[in-house]
Amino acid sequence: MAKPRVLILGGGFGGLAAAKKLGKNAIVTVVDRHNYQTFLPLLYQVSTAGLAADHVAYPIRGALRSIHGKFRMGSPISLDYKNKTVKLDSSEILEFDHLIIAMGSVTADFGIPGVNEHALGMKTIEEALEIRAQVMRRFEDLCRFEDETVLSVAIVGGGPTGVELAGALAELVRGPLKNDQAHAANHIDIYLIEAGPRLLPMFSESLSAKTQKDLEKLGVKVMCNTAVKSVESRNIVLSDGGLIPSEVTVWAAGVKGSPDAQFLHIPIVSGRIDCDDTLQTKHYPNIWAVGDISGAKSANGRFLPMIAPVAMQQGRFVAKQILRSHSGQALKKFSYKDKGSMATIGRHKAVVEAKKIKISGPLAWVIWLFLHLFYLMGGRNRIGTIADWSWNYLTFDRGNRHIIDSTN
Amino acid sequence: MAKPRVLILGGGFGGLAAAKKLGKNAIVTVVDRHNYQTFLPLLYQVSTAGLAADHVAYPIRGALRSIHGKFRMGSPISLDYKNKTVKLDSSEILEFDHLIIAMGSVTADFGIPGVNEHALGMKTIEEALEIRAQVMRRFEDLCRFEDETVLSVAIVGGGPTGVELAGALAELVRGPLKNDQAHAANHIDIYLIEAGPRLLPMFSESLSAKTQKDLEKLGVKVMCNTAVKSVESRNIVLSDGGLIPSEVTVWAAGVKGSPDAQFLHIPIVSGRIDCDDTLQTKHYPNIWAVGDISGAKSANGRFLPMIAPVAMQQGRFVAKQILRSHSGQALKKFSYKDKGSMATIGRHKAVVEAKKIKISGPLAWVIWLFLHLFYLMGGRNRIGTIADWSWNYLTFDRGNRHIIDSTN
Repeated sequence: MAKPRVLILGGGFGGLAAAKKLGKNAIVTVVDRHNYQTFLPLLYQVSTAGLAADHVAYPIRGALRSIHGKFRMGSPISLDYKNKTVKLDSSEILEFDHLIIAMGSVTADFGIPGVNEHALGMKTIEEALEIRAQVMRRFEDLCRFEDETVLSVAIVGGGPTGVELAGALAELVRGPLKNDQAHAANHIDIYLIEAGPRLLPMFSESLSAKTQKDLEKLGVKVMCNTAVKSVESRNIVLSDGGLIPSEVTVWAAGVKGSPDAQFLHIPIVSGRIDCDDTLQTKHYPNIWAVGDISGAKSANGRFLPMIAPVAMQQGRFVAKQILRSHSGQALKKFSYKDKGSMATIGRHKAVVEAKKIKISGPLAWVIWLFLHLFYLMGGRNRIGTIADWSWNYLTFDRGNRHIIDSTN
Repeated sequence: MAKPRVLILGGGFGGLAAAKKLGKNAIVTVVDRHNYQTFLPLLYQVSTAGLAADHVAYPIRGALRSIHGKFRMGSPISLDYKNKTVKLDSSEILEFDHLIIAMGSVTADFGIPGVNEHALGMKTIEEALEIRAQVMRRFEDLCRFEDETVLSVAIVGGGPTGVELAGALAELVRGPLKNDQAHAANHIDIYLIEAGPRLLPMFSESLSAKTQKDLEKLGVKVMCNTAVKSVESRNIVLSDGGLIPSEVTVWAAGVKGSPDAQFLHIPIVSGRIDCDDTLQTKHYPNIWAVGDISGAKSANGRFLPMIAPVAMQQGRFVAKQILRSHSGQALKKFSYKDKGSMATIGRHKAVVEAKKIKISGPLAWVIWLFLHLFYLMGGRNRIGTIADWSWNYLTFDRGNRHIIDSTN
């Protein structure tokens, strides 16, 4: 029996997990607009000068080498389901027997005015470097002013991304930047703004409270129950009419399924692909949806969270479904195994929650370190990250404070 | 006696060498348009995916910490010699007792048409990342074409920069890219074009010949005695009317003193500051010129080469001159101690020449490695570079093949 041709749109956690699980049992082609996978969970460390940008990226061709997979850099622009082909923006037409859509998510502004114009997202390496550049550039301004001017950095969104970014930023400011020029570092305010009643809503209340306390100890001004009405160039306008000064606003309030998936004209619901619990797209049994773009639901009828573990489990699951389908076996239903959540706040500070286990402090921090190193793809990134982390840990320094952007 | 206030324009090899030598014997302020020093001798490895961009940069504030030096990010726009002040583009006015100009060099196009428009320089991290992005993007095109289309990359200039870039590019193509997709890698041509009769003219003829042979073994098409008349978007036009196809042209043919120095209205000759052998600018005894921007000459009356060792020796020398001047001692005359030259061509391949010593092959390569690690500033960069290099060496891979640019 000929191997199935599997086309995977997206080389993130979901797409590459599917590719690797398919291995040599299928003819795999991965399409992505970047030639690398971005390790999104560590992007905030690029923003805060803890890691080199290249260490959170991994060449997709490298990842596909052992399974003899093909790669195409580009974006899909149309789907011809009758002929089972996808056209890319390069005008190339790729044939498939099975199509896996793993196109991920983009920053969601929820229609709030000014987010696109005045806030920075944190979904790509370029965006992470831009946050780093803006913070460091404003810091250099403060160093020059040598007066009472305050730089205000506001992070909107109290989920893991916002919490980790706020903590790392506070440590950058209170550590290396304070050593660089104390007066300037003492004039940087960091706000973390969350619309809901507490940080990290997926954790238990005790860990949320612990997280807030840890961040406040680092000097972060945490504001819960604070909804944003609009973002202006130097202010955040709140729903109650209040203003928070913000020269640099990072939008970590949420993501939505990649709008590029709409080019494919398949059923979309709430920005995610409408799919069965087999992860097959409604009416299109040969099209599978995994990761942030997938509209799969949990037993309680709600969408699954847009996080890497869901994408990886779905990627591996769909790989097996395709092989089952190809060999005439019955399909199975996906169910997400929640192995817990974790977030790091700073040196020796993290929270880990898995079922009934709740850990915070140094042990949680060590668990976080090891799991992130374990999941970081590629030995070179692992070695480089260990090098950067050891240096930061031992010296309390952040060596990657370089402003690398297109304005230089 | 009050310490002299020393203002240093430029935080490269010359400027920082001066700052460190002055140490706490002066009140030091360094001005640079970047907040980091760029380790230029390894920039070609960023271009060819061997090193992470952040590893060839080092925060200037970090370098100045131990001497309690001040830093300003910006560019000088005018000099008021009477009042001994320099104005920056930030409009800040800085006072000095002594001014060290160490503004370095920029890519020189020698008036050849099309260089600015169609060729890439390699003097900044952004330019190095742009070369990497263009090569990798064109490689992805070839992978898609899967036909007889050839990608031609031409490097103009057979000095150390051109030689090292050509060798590293050939190894990237013949190694990792060949593993990625052999057909595409086999359709990449690399030209190294030199106007003079041989590569590396500062070396002896035997090492030049060895270098050319090594590069040719790696598949580089070396063309000496080949002058460029103009650069077009997809071709290089030669003086004899010949055409060399080139989709990506890197201009490594030479550098000239930074034109920004002209804002200061001090005597300039051939783009470099006209200075005495005390390294004092003509008619301006309190203004010192070091490095690529300095018009200091060797005993034979020719300008000194624009290389890091000259800049570092001059930086340290000027620091001592200023302290001598400040304490009423007689000034000395600078003479450059040439400790030799080296260039690496590839794995186990390098040339080293110092006085009567001429070495090529693995030993030269090991010497090159150690000296570059030794001069790489900062423990973190050293660790990170060792990590990247070890990985590349052991796996024959290049992990940093990521296209990171503003078009993503």
